[in-house]
Amino acid sequence: MTETAAQPRVPTRDRILFATAELFRRQGYNGTGLKQVVAEAEAPFGSLYHHFPGGKVELGEEVIHSAGAFFQTLVTAVYDADATTEASVRAIFGGAAETLEATDFEDACPIATVALEVASTDERLRAATAAVFERWTAALTERVGDRDKALAIIAALEGAFVLCRASRSTEAMHAAGAMAAALVADG
Amino acid sequence: MTETAAQPRVPTRDRILFATAELFRRQGYNGTGLKQVVAEAEAPFGSLYHHFPGGKVELGEEVIHSAGAFFQTLVTAVYDADATTEASVRAIFGGAAETLEATDFEDACPIATVALEVASTDERLRAATAAVFERWTAALTERVGDRDKALAIIAALEGAFVLCRASRSTEAMHAAGAMAAALVADG
Repeated sequence: MTETAAQPRVPTRDRILFATAELFRRQGYNGTGLKQVVAEAEAPFGSLYHHFPGGKVELGEEVIHSAGAFFQTLVTAVYDADATTEASVRAIFGGAAETLEATDFEDACPIATVALEVASTDERLRAATAAVFERWTAALTERVGDRDKALAIIAALEGAFVLCRASRSTEAMHAAGAMAAALVADG
Repeated sequence: MTETAAQPRVPTRDRILFATAELFRRQGYNGTGLKQVVAEAEAPFGSLYHHFPGGKVELGEEVIHSAGAFFQTLVTAVYDADATTEASVRAIFGGAAETLEATDFEDACPIATVALEVASTDERLRAATAAVFERWTAALTERVGDRDKALAIIAALEGAFVLCRASRSTEAMHAAGAMAAALVADG
């Protein structure tokens, strides 16, 4: 398989990052092998170490940061499209429920899985997940005007992903969204 | 190492289940190898397949069910010790924060990590995590009197575990607890 045959316009490094994020979402960090990454990315094996000399940990770190930034952009765009804080918060959970259904409950947050897997075993990856959550918290605190409320909303969203993927139902996402919306309704 | 030398009173099967639950909490399902399980359980390798002929999947399924029942007993005991719904909900999150601190953020929910790792890759294990969350939801629904509120509270708790382990701070657990307590304060 040649590097440029399948997707000539997307640089190899980006294809590797994208494929890894997708694999982390579906099967986590420990369940994802580098051979599978290069196969999904349609990249030669050598290109992985060329772009990520530190191997799996460096690739994981990079994916956490880039996926974190991607989701932050996505979520703040959804948030900022609504007029009130309550409607914005509700829209985030509604959008998450739609994505879960549209992807047959495969596309959830890639950060959460890795965060739980590596929190006690890899300090570099733990720090990367912490940095992503901290940036999300700062962006949401700016919008809802309260750090504790922002943390609680992100916790509700992440936990709802866990329940929804397990149950293959969006019920928990809607329930968590109603609680989060009520939290900011008075403020 | 003989089977009975280290912990003569705990049956081998229970030692294997306990060690596996502990390993799942710290490093997830995919990160846990059977050799590590028998080493931690101080059990001969053959005993694993004697007690769990279906190997890792059967062991995983059994750990999910038994850890799920264990946590349900623990959490409902904490819940039922308080007089009001609000105080009970607050006590659950307070207890979770204390456990995280006391175990240096290692002891979190073993169900959540496995649920995220296997939701798209192993149907038997996904169904086991779904069954545990459903039993928790039923027990909490009985207590708070509303299924959506119960789901939202469990989501907040599970998501707070994710954020707390990543950040090595209990801040998100307390913030999520305040939100969950407010949710039931009116009811």
